[in-house]
Amino acid sequence: MAKVIEINDPGDPRLDDFRDLSTADRRPDRPGGRGLVIAEGVVVVERLLASPYPVRGLLGVRRRIEALDLSDLDVPAYVTSAEVMASVVGFHLNRGVLAAADRAPAVPLEDLADRSTRLAVLEGVGDHENLGSIFRNAAALGVDGVVLGPGCSDPLYRRSVRVSMGHVLRVPFAIADEWPAALNMLRHKGFTVAALTPRPSAPHLADANLRGRRVAVLLGSEGPGLTEEAIEAADVAVRIPMSSGVDSLNVATAGAVAFYALL
Amino acid sequence: MAKVIEINDPGDPRLDDFRDLSTADRRPDRPGGRGLVIAEGVVVVERLLASPYPVRGLLGVRRRIEALDLSDLDVPAYVTSAEVMASVVGFHLNRGVLAAADRAPAVPLEDLADRSTRLAVLEGVGDHENLGSIFRNAAALGVDGVVLGPGCSDPLYRRSVRVSMGHVLRVPFAIADEWPAALNMLRHKGFTVAALTPRPSAPHLADANLRGRRVAVLLGSEGPGLTEEAIEAADVAVRIPMSSGVDSLNVATAGAVAFYALL
Repeated sequence: MAKVIEINDPGDPRLDDFRDLSTADRRPDRPGGRGLVIAEGVVVVERLLASPYPVRGLLGVRRRIEALDLSDLDVPAYVTSAEVMASVVGFHLNRGVLAAADRAPAVPLEDLADRSTRLAVLEGVGDHENLGSIFRNAAALGVDGVVLGPGCSDPLYRRSVRVSMGHVLRVPFAIADEWPAALNMLRHKGFTVAALTPRPSAPHLADANLRGRRVAVLLGSEGPGLTEEAIEAADVAVRIPMSSGVDSLNVATAGAVAFYALL
Repeated sequence: MAKVIEINDPGDPRLDDFRDLSTADRRPDRPGGRGLVIAEGVVVVERLLASPYPVRGLLGVRRRIEALDLSDLDVPAYVTSAEVMASVVGFHLNRGVLAAADRAPAVPLEDLADRSTRLAVLEGVGDHENLGSIFRNAAALGVDGVVLGPGCSDPLYRRSVRVSMGHVLRVPFAIADEWPAALNMLRHKGFTVAALTPRPSAPHLADANLRGRRVAVLLGSEGPGLTEEAIEAADVAVRIPMSSGVDSLNVATAGAVAFYALL
């Protein structure tokens, strides 16, 4: 059972995991290697508690702390006022509860491939909110895991965790260090790698019948899109039919349409 | 040709359309009836210039103002520094250019229905970013117009305009004052009204073959979803197949999947 401890001094060093979040958790040099994993709000905190990440502690107003099942936890749960929380965190937090956890080692890419039938593979997705949305969409639409290629940001950054509704803590991800060699590896493991592109020459998504196969959907960043080398390393390029003169969809939205259509 | 005027005094009353944007444009009592339409950044400003909204003026740093084609405009284009802009607007604006326009009368609902074959109909979409994203997705995926039912926020609010990438200025919208009677009116005009719901009893989206028909896709807010009366007034309810234990998709993302699958 978590130990509930009341704290009223915002300077108390026991609250340091939660201090100055708007700046501190951008720094990968914080304790825990690449920084702590921070969950905000009851739903996301519950997902952190159920995740493989080792929880270090919680901070919240009494009503929120009491809404959580802390029976299996052996960490402190600090209770304070909304004002003290805002002073510690550095901004007003209307979700009323936070949890901090250490990082866990990333899943090796080959292991993730072996136990997945549907993957999202990302290249250059540097926007934390897009990254979080992709994990949320992946969880909803039956994607087993996410592979992070070059140029992707940290999915465990606080804002990604929040936008994903905590699904970055549930959907396993792996880092692809070798690029685009990782795509060849996926092919050797039986995946069809389908690159999503706005190119007019690519066939429509609906015409690529990949159901029943192991599929890796390759998504690039919104602006520049996928690199030439990534598209060439894919088995097939497909596009979402779109009105002319309109910018492409947001990468997370395009990904959701592709997950729906291909998987 | 727009008249380019250099201004270096942030207090100059000629800049009042752009003053204190973070608070002022939430107020419907501003000049222009329901407030001004504000576009931010070159791409969105270009869409405002091409829209039916009567442009009142521009404000930007020289480089951004010079990037625009202002030959058809007869309004002032104020050039200043990034610092003066930030002081006028109330926050740092890294897009470097703004345009302000008056509102135009909304399109009557029946007129919009008569000239559309594919509509998105929204109930209770109060989040400005979701609203903007829905317009962006509608533009990309071939939706002709958007109908705003009860509980929707103002699509011309600055943040919606920005998130939509300016597509709220291109995709026509109408207000449905009679609800759910508006859905019956759409049916009488030959539309099949398809309500998107997470209910497990609803048939899968893929099984509803509505291609070739006039379709109105009915979308509700993320939390409570569509009201019972709206679902009952629809011709058919459909759902996106989703993994169990996962929250539903964001309303804009769900809409994109539905536009793709149904239209």
